[in-house]
Amino acid sequence: MIKSLGSSTIQFIDMPKIIGFSSVAGKKEAQGPLKDDFDKIFYDMHAGQQTWEKAESTLQKEALSIALQKAQYSAEDISFLFAGDLLNQCISSSYGLKDFHIPYLGQYGACSTMVQGLIMASVMVESKACFASACVTSSHFCSAERQYRFPLDYGGQRPQSAQWTVTGAGSCILTSENTKQKPSVKYATVGKIVDLGVKDQNNMGAAMAPAAADTLVRFFKDTSSNADDYDMIYTGDLGKIGSKLLYELMKKEGYDISCKHKDCGVMIYKDDLDVHAGGSGCGCCASVLGGHILKKISNREMNNVLVMATGALLSLTSVSQSESIPSIAHLVNIVM
Amino acid sequence: MIKSLGSSTIQFIDMPKIIGFSSVAGKKEAQGPLKDDFDKIFYDMHAGQQTWEKAESTLQKEALSIALQKAQYSAEDISFLFAGDLLNQCISSSYGLKDFHIPYLGQYGACSTMVQGLIMASVMVESKACFASACVTSSHFCSAERQYRFPLDYGGQRPQSAQWTVTGAGSCILTSENTKQKPSVKYATVGKIVDLGVKDQNNMGAAMAPAAADTLVRFFKDTSSNADDYDMIYTGDLGKIGSKLLYELMKKEGYDISCKHKDCGVMIYKDDLDVHAGGSGCGCCASVLGGHILKKISNREMNNVLVMATGALLSLTSVSQSESIPSIAHLVNIVM
Repeated sequence: MIKSLGSSTIQFIDMPKIIGFSSVAGKKEAQGPLKDDFDKIFYDMHAGQQTWEKAESTLQKEALSIALQKAQYSAEDISFLFAGDLLNQCISSSYGLKDFHIPYLGQYGACSTMVQGLIMASVMVESKACFASACVTSSHFCSAERQYRFPLDYGGQRPQSAQWTVTGAGSCILTSENTKQKPSVKYATVGKIVDLGVKDQNNMGAAMAPAAADTLVRFFKDTSSNADDYDMIYTGDLGKIGSKLLYELMKKEGYDISCKHKDCGVMIYKDDLDVHAGGSGCGCCASVLGGHILKKISNREMNNVLVMATGALLSLTSVSQSESIPSIAHLVNIVM
Repeated sequence: MIKSLGSSTIQFIDMPKIIGFSSVAGKKEAQGPLKDDFDKIFYDMHAGQQTWEKAESTLQKEALSIALQKAQYSAEDISFLFAGDLLNQCISSSYGLKDFHIPYLGQYGACSTMVQGLIMASVMVESKACFASACVTSSHFCSAERQYRFPLDYGGQRPQSAQWTVTGAGSCILTSENTKQKPSVKYATVGKIVDLGVKDQNNMGAAMAPAAADTLVRFFKDTSSNADDYDMIYTGDLGKIGSKLLYELMKKEGYDISCKHKDCGVMIYKDDLDVHAGGSGCGCCASVLGGHILKKISNREMNNVLVMATGALLSLTSVSQSESIPSIAHLVNIVM
């Protein structure tokens, strides 16, 4: 049963279980502190494929396969699959997932896609529309660079506020199966599009922080809770600059989250890897959630966390037309 | 309450009501036979904006505003908004809808987006995640041409199998309000990605027909029904060629739908408008559903129809890499 709290937070009374989860990543991510949390590392950036786009599709395929294996489910057990990515028309997902033959609902939330998919997959299970559902998303440094920074030979300098697209993917399998205790989705808050007029595409953290603050404040109010009630609050990929801005914005609203907050984009890389403000891309939150975070919850190192993925809803066309960057943040509360 | 039938059809027991619906279109569409069904016609292809992309955003904004008006709801009454479009990173939706401040879940189903959004909006209402939700989608001939056929000066010939991107948008407001009888969503079947290897981007109808057949056969089997049980079966934008292929594929499965079928892409234009195989784009199914079809149901000219929107999940990159065209079709059963 789903209960509506406030205007945009929903409570899952039966709490869908995350019965399988996975995380795959590339070689640069494997040089970071989360190496042991990835289920599979692709040291070959082509992942054995001929194009970067097919390589990214392979990340999704692997992530979903591993999550299914861990859940001991087959593709036929899954009724609905929510997926999306950053590439134009979300081709990493459509080409990567077509061979699973699972009813498919394409999502676009930019780097917030992992949590958006997790929310929708949870809704399907909780509403009894199905027994099991899945979500998966990815990003790939090279396919993103080709799409967003082409021609690369132009050699644009990356300012310190820029982020580095994570090569990685993550997947979760949701179920209503009456199995032993598993990480479960308790609450979700769907983001509103927030646009405070930031136009610098090399400072996505600044563009996304207001959306993150908007969602987090609404969640705290809807659930009458605050940062002290949670073991940790993870954001998707605000990076170093966006994280600081989030602290400031939350402080203005009367919430101090700085002691309880980590950002997946900051966590995933070592400082000396020239990633500047941190990681980004749909695969950033996905690979950290599907690896590090859900492992810690499964191991009972944490019992009650918030995961909020943030997305910048721009495109090359909107940037070239000097538009500002509308952003969004979706949040889930995962408990053990 | 939602009931799962088969693996991918769901039944809405309480049946969310479509309390408001709308349809807007451009001048070429207004020259066709559905002119009187559109709520608003934009004779200026720029819709008063400086760019085609902003013009398309304006279509979505208008469509949602009109649907809200007709429902006598305000934006604050809507808990979840499902939207998407064909432009890279779905910018028509994110820029067009940001000022409504409605919790937003971006969808990508190419030209199947209208029905995908309608399904998800129905799930939210039926599961009691909210009282009211909305969906909207659009396409615009010029923004699509700029994105897919640039540089236009190249002047590529359009073969007879090509379709014409509809300038239009449509929106539906779903609610559980106990109001007088309204068109209601009874069943939904979520599509699987189907790829039979068609590579001709100028023959999307052929690429999408197998996905349409797959979904329609699953729906008929899951509900133990056939074409005779419905007043009409509408497809989104198979066009003339795709429609014929669908008849053939359905016949092989033992279903004759030819007497009960219409295609929005064929319906929307007059034959002499040089549109070749018919209309396409997210706005095709959206503007015909949000206008013609829902008006006919509201007027009780029809009581029981199927609407199946089809989408081709390709991109310019996948075409240039000689990939085939994976397709999808989502179906809803709307009753009065």
